[in-house]
Amino acid sequence: MLTLSSDFGWPYPAAMRGVMLQETDARLVDISHEFPRQDVRTAAFWLREIVPWFPPAVHCVVVDPGVGTDRDALVVEAGDHILVGPDNGVLCPVARAVAGDAEIASYAIEYDAASTTFHGRDVFAPMAARIHERGIETMRASGVLQPVSAAVDLEFPEPSRTDGSVQGTVLVVDGFGNVVTNIPGDTLEVIDDEHLTVNGVRTPLEATYAAVDPGTALVTVGSHGNVELAVNRGRGDDAFDLAAGDDVTLRWDSH
Amino acid sequence: MLTLSSDFGWPYPAAMRGVMLQETDARLVDISHEFPRQDVRTAAFWLREIVPWFPPAVHCVVVDPGVGTDRDALVVEAGDHILVGPDNGVLCPVARAVAGDAEIASYAIEYDAASTTFHGRDVFAPMAARIHERGIETMRASGVLQPVSAAVDLEFPEPSRTDGSVQGTVLVVDGFGNVVTNIPGDTLEVIDDEHLTVNGVRTPLEATYAAVDPGTALVTVGSHGNVELAVNRGRGDDAFDLAAGDDVTLRWDSH
Amino acid sequence: MLTLSSDFGWPYPAAMRGVMLQETDARLVDISHEFPRQDVRTAAFWLREIVPWFPPAVHCVVVDPGVGTDRDALVVEAGDHILVGPDNGVLCPVARAVAGDAEIASYAIEYDAASTTFHGRDVFAPMAARIHERGIETMRASGVLQPVSAAVDLEFPEPSRTDGSVQGTVLVVDGFGNVVTNIPGDTLEVIDDEHLTVNGVRTPLEATYAAVDPGTALVTVGSHGNVELAVNRGRGDDAFDLAAGDDVTLRWDSH
Repeated sequence: MLTLSSDFGWPYPAAMRGVMLQETDARLVDISHEFPRQDVRTAAFWLREIVPWFPPAVHCVVVDPGVGTDRDALVVEAGDHILVGPDNGVLCPVARAVAGDAEIASYAIEYDAASTTFHGRDVFAPMAARIHERGIETMRASGVLQPVSAAVDLEFPEPSRTDGSVQGTVLVVDGFGNVVTNIPGDTLEVIDDEHLTVNGVRTPLEATYAAVDPGTALVTVGSHGNVELAVNRGRGDDAFDLAAGDDVTLRWDSH
Repeated sequence: MLTLSSDFGWPYPAAMRGVMLQETDARLVDISHEFPRQDVRTAAFWLREIVPWFPPAVHCVVVDPGVGTDRDALVVEAGDHILVGPDNGVLCPVARAVAGDAEIASYAIEYDAASTTFHGRDVFAPMAARIHERGIETMRASGVLQPVSAAVDLEFPEPSRTDGSVQGTVLVVDGFGNVVTNIPGDTLEVIDDEHLTVNGVRTPLEATYAAVDPGTALVTVGSHGNVELAVNRGRGDDAFDLAAGDDVTLRWDSH
Repeated sequence: MLTLSSDFGWPYPAAMRGVMLQETDARLVDISHEFPRQDVRTAAFWLREIVPWFPPAVHCVVVDPGVGTDRDALVVEAGDHILVGPDNGVLCPVARAVAGDAEIASYAIEYDAASTTFHGRDVFAPMAARIHERGIETMRASGVLQPVSAAVDLEFPEPSRTDGSVQGTVLVVDGFGNVVTNIPGDTLEVIDDEHLTVNGVRTPLEATYAAVDPGTALVTVGSHGNVELAVNRGRGDDAFDLAAGDDVTLRWDSH
């Protein structure tokens, strides 16, 4: 199984599908091609959440603002999963999420690309398909993959806790307008929700969106396990006036 | 064969694909993930039109504003098709459209979900895949599916006819701006199209969009069999100033 | 293998998928359903670029502003590829791109369509699937396909060269905002890039987007082999104020 992820929208992903299908009869599964353009961090966040739900696969991930520069073209082996894409930080968090106890090994692809502007088609799609067909061992033995000691990594910020509050950051806003923070959901287990405020505004803590009236804001734990700021049948980003990168303070100690 | 439908946009459908592929090697077909968010009625309309074109399949349909509440998680058996999704009305019209002469049977899923906000991933996708793999009989015998006597239903409004007119409603507007009404296309067979008006405005009745000049409004019968208000190479919703839920009066008796 | 392309967005392509799957177990691959509505020229450009990357397949291409009129429904055989769609010019440039040394043969489909507004579902999808299953020879022998001497063609404009300049046209703007011209990339090999101007404005010539600072405009050769006007991590169409059909003059002789 091969998966495809990119910020290409349309029609470029189709060229990647065609190139892969020249090399393999494997199942192709699109994760998404709607990742925000050239936004490595948002792609890393969502792929870290989604790829672990897949069975073992080769994942071709191309969000590549540095295409054509001397950044490495990377293959990362992480347990039963193999990730293929530019060396710009997007792959490492995903690799950690899927590796389990397995070691993570990274390789640079030796390539001679037809274009300097579309390595998704000319480097990553064919390489992902070939690794799927021949196995990573064979590709390594052939010299096409060279071990690299340190791939570019990307860390998500950690929230800071005090006794009656936590200060975090907005990681992403999803298509519903739900504001996904970096605050772990289990933080909410200890709070006094009668006094819970989000950036100073009293907000109810609920298990489901529909626990409050339509149009009403709430704090909940999203499907990724993090604290999420939402509005039942509305947009949390508008209600809370928050976007990716903004600070969020939850406070529950009113004293 | 499994199909997927939702209002999730991206990237959430990918998690559903991954979960299904953990359970099955079946073909996965996306119907659409662009259904208007939390709009059960529009999803029901389109799925009622589209699902009957498919060969027998298990259809996973998740437009779920009540996720995490005590609404049932539903499986509907309708002839050769099986529908899986929240019990909010979206499934019943689709079941009627595909059942033919077969009886329709509904079951509630016994579940213990990992999240309260993403049952597409945690309840419906795995259940659809398991039903595909093991068969609905096996799932029923295991006690996971419990018969329900009455699933939530949803009726589309019926137009009212007089001798020289029909009063209907806009059901949906498609991406081209074509205004789809609830007026059956065969209504048009009896009319005097020299005097046909739409909400008071004289409009030509044509078999094809291109029968009128570009930019010109027309009345036609859409591919769903209903009366449609359109503009050749333009948007009918703008020209007629109509949106879903609005009233439409066709009048053809000028006396 | 069957591919699908259209300007339908959602949900209409799903009906085409269903109809095809009634006829075949073949792999279905979406190229894109986001082609600009009723824009035959843009679809032809992108398909000419993308279809040659696919292995042999039957390609169902429906951008069809004349649906329901007496325009032919076309099948074009071009080497190992078969194209199916309305006879409005979109197929011929694609056929030339994939035919190689093979002859190109065109056939009109004899059909009796269920609707006058959705031949993607009622004519092209079932025909593409049947050709895939039975072979074009069988379909021809059955009389369903009748040879046509001249399909509607579509030519892209050619740039005009002088000694120190080239005058071209914008063919399309992609989703990144990159402005794709009709000027062949090898034009740039001979120019004096110290004096290169785009519509009078000095612009650097670079091999990659990231060779200039974020927000800076550049001239490059895109993955299609044509001259492209872009902005690193920004939109070329905004920076150059250009859209499809606009004139572009590159000048490199400052004397």
